[in-house]
Amino acid sequence: MKATAEGILAGNLRSLAKAITLVESRLPDHRAEARALLSRLRRSGRQALRLGLTGTPGSGKSTFIERFGLMLADQGQRVAVLAVDPSSALSGGSILGDKTRMENLSRHPNAFIRPSPSQSAVGGVSQRTRDAVGLCEAAGFDIVIIETVGVGQTETQVEQMSDIFILLLAPAGGDALQGVKRGVIELADLVLVNKCDGDLASNARQAAAEYSAALKLFRKRERDPEGFPKTMLVSARDGIGLEACLQEIQALAMWRRDSGHWTDNRARQAVSWFESEVDAGMLAGLEEISGIAKLRADLADRVGEGAVDPDEAAQKLLAGFRTYIESRDRASALETDVSGIQTPGIRGRK
Amino acid sequence: MKATAEGILAGNLRSLAKAITLVESRLPDHRAEARALLSRLRRSGRQALRLGLTGTPGSGKSTFIERFGLMLADQGQRVAVLAVDPSSALSGGSILGDKTRMENLSRHPNAFIRPSPSQSAVGGVSQRTRDAVGLCEAAGFDIVIIETVGVGQTETQVEQMSDIFILLLAPAGGDALQGVKRGVIELADLVLVNKCDGDLASNARQAAAEYSAALKLFRKRERDPEGFPKTMLVSARDGIGLEACLQEIQALAMWRRDSGHWTDNRARQAVSWFESEVDAGMLAGLEEISGIAKLRADLADRVGEGAVDPDEAAQKLLAGFRTYIESRDRASALETDVSGIQTPGIRGRK
Repeated sequence: MKATAEGILAGNLRSLAKAITLVESRLPDHRAEARALLSRLRRSGRQALRLGLTGTPGSGKSTFIERFGLMLADQGQRVAVLAVDPSSALSGGSILGDKTRMENLSRHPNAFIRPSPSQSAVGGVSQRTRDAVGLCEAAGFDIVIIETVGVGQTETQVEQMSDIFILLLAPAGGDALQGVKRGVIELADLVLVNKCDGDLASNARQAAAEYSAALKLFRKRERDPEGFPKTMLVSARDGIGLEACLQEIQALAMWRRDSGHWTDNRARQAVSWFESEVDAGMLAGLEEISGIAKLRADLADRVGEGAVDPDEAAQKLLAGFRTYIESRDRASALETDVSGIQTPGIRGRK
Repeated sequence: MKATAEGILAGNLRSLAKAITLVESRLPDHRAEARALLSRLRRSGRQALRLGLTGTPGSGKSTFIERFGLMLADQGQRVAVLAVDPSSALSGGSILGDKTRMENLSRHPNAFIRPSPSQSAVGGVSQRTRDAVGLCEAAGFDIVIIETVGVGQTETQVEQMSDIFILLLAPAGGDALQGVKRGVIELADLVLVNKCDGDLASNARQAAAEYSAALKLFRKRERDPEGFPKTMLVSARDGIGLEACLQEIQALAMWRRDSGHWTDNRARQAVSWFESEVDAGMLAGLEEISGIAKLRADLADRVGEGAVDPDEAAQKLLAGFRTYIESRDRASALETDVSGIQTPGIRGRK
């Protein structure tokens, strides 16, 4: 493990790839090893600019990342691309697919491309992606692009591990726009309308005007300087607007760093990650108590049929749960548990 | 209680008011009595059209409800207005305030106005409002308007107990629009731009065009017929557009009834209410286990400071929690708990 850690800190891509495979493993031994590695690497204190990116199907994400990534790489910046791909959990990885769809970028010495299978298992939904981001930061990457294809809750999870979140859209052929999933437009710092080229140029300008107007309808967030969230026109195919887009990203990143929002945002993300993992883990743990899960499912069915009032059903279930908790001999057992949790492993690293 | 139930079923407003006071009480005895009353009244099977209404401050909610409610009441429809008012939890109720701000409606024989204090206590956040809606339905009201001033999560909760959700907006004096809280615009079935009168008429038309364009950017929901969500112009002050607004509400309600979305929506709301109450109640119950809450808060602080990785902190806490769950002698105690939950009180009412 020491060799892997040293390799990563030296920027060795083979060590990085090996470590990502380790954090993706579900074997308990591997998980423990992964945690130890991540913990050791965190001491480097290295941070990259984390760019979250999502887009409607057909918006040209691959072309955009390829061109945008090449521009950065050619400037001497080291770029990692992590693609959160739900399908790869089934196919066992789509590394070749990703390398094919971003062929030139994948061959660039400053670039690293890797799919990150998303999972529906509790706690594993995107923890592995988050771990992979941390590994890329330790390996000295300047920019980590976290791409999501926008299935399920992945956009929100990716936003929760990004410093800046980008929504990529394409104007449709006619006057109809690609509908954006509810909730997603509000996460965006930048809305990029792609394919501002050829026949679609005027559609793209129209779409950009509409998104720009729509963004003004929302209440301002504290972490947004004047003019953000912002809508911009790009053509990934023709390389138009990419430089301007980078400048806006850098300006926003600088403003957030200077104003303290960058640090606040990362702290807020970490705490909210912790809280939601604890909530999900505890609820999953309770489901394993024999009887609770089945009773809960039965009650939910009856509530859905209109046979029982939801509040009444919830109170019945919770009354049983409280009895379970209260009947436990806390004095003897829990004190031990809790003291067991407060290991020097945590306390010692203040 | 029998007298109260009969009074409510006969449409007696004094009985209704008394029952709402009962469901609002936090005393355990009152709560049990309230549940029994609600359970008895549910058998009536009466349903009202539940209209959720929220709006930016200064959008003219009171004037709108007064005029819209009077129009309905004059048509012979019985209208109940429940105002979810966070401030009334502090002031101990703002009944006079509500009656003053909707003076004519409050005196109409077909109308009933009542504030419903919102609460931050787990399980009580808006359960009491939900109970009050059920009481109004049993009392034979045709329409129940649930108004929220839009503090915290109240809009989402009100949407979760509404058949149709309305967002009321006012154009600002200049070209700036009132910003809408993120997430709220996506809940709306109807966006009403109010104050389309006098000096603000052209601003209102402009605002309506912008919201109408913005609504088209979102992906369509299954429960929306063609043309919905819809933006409309109204002037509550001058009574303009209220009749058209009612027609749209009725058309939407009819479409949803005929297509089955009405029933599906109520079933979905009930199940999701049950699930979130169970989750919140269980998590609150776990917080009461000595040690867990404090350790969790301590870990969250350290995660926020960047001293511990969120995932690592969560796993440590969850490991302790699992030990706690597993160390329990389930075989003896839980079976009893679970069988105790499945009372004939639930099973018997299929």
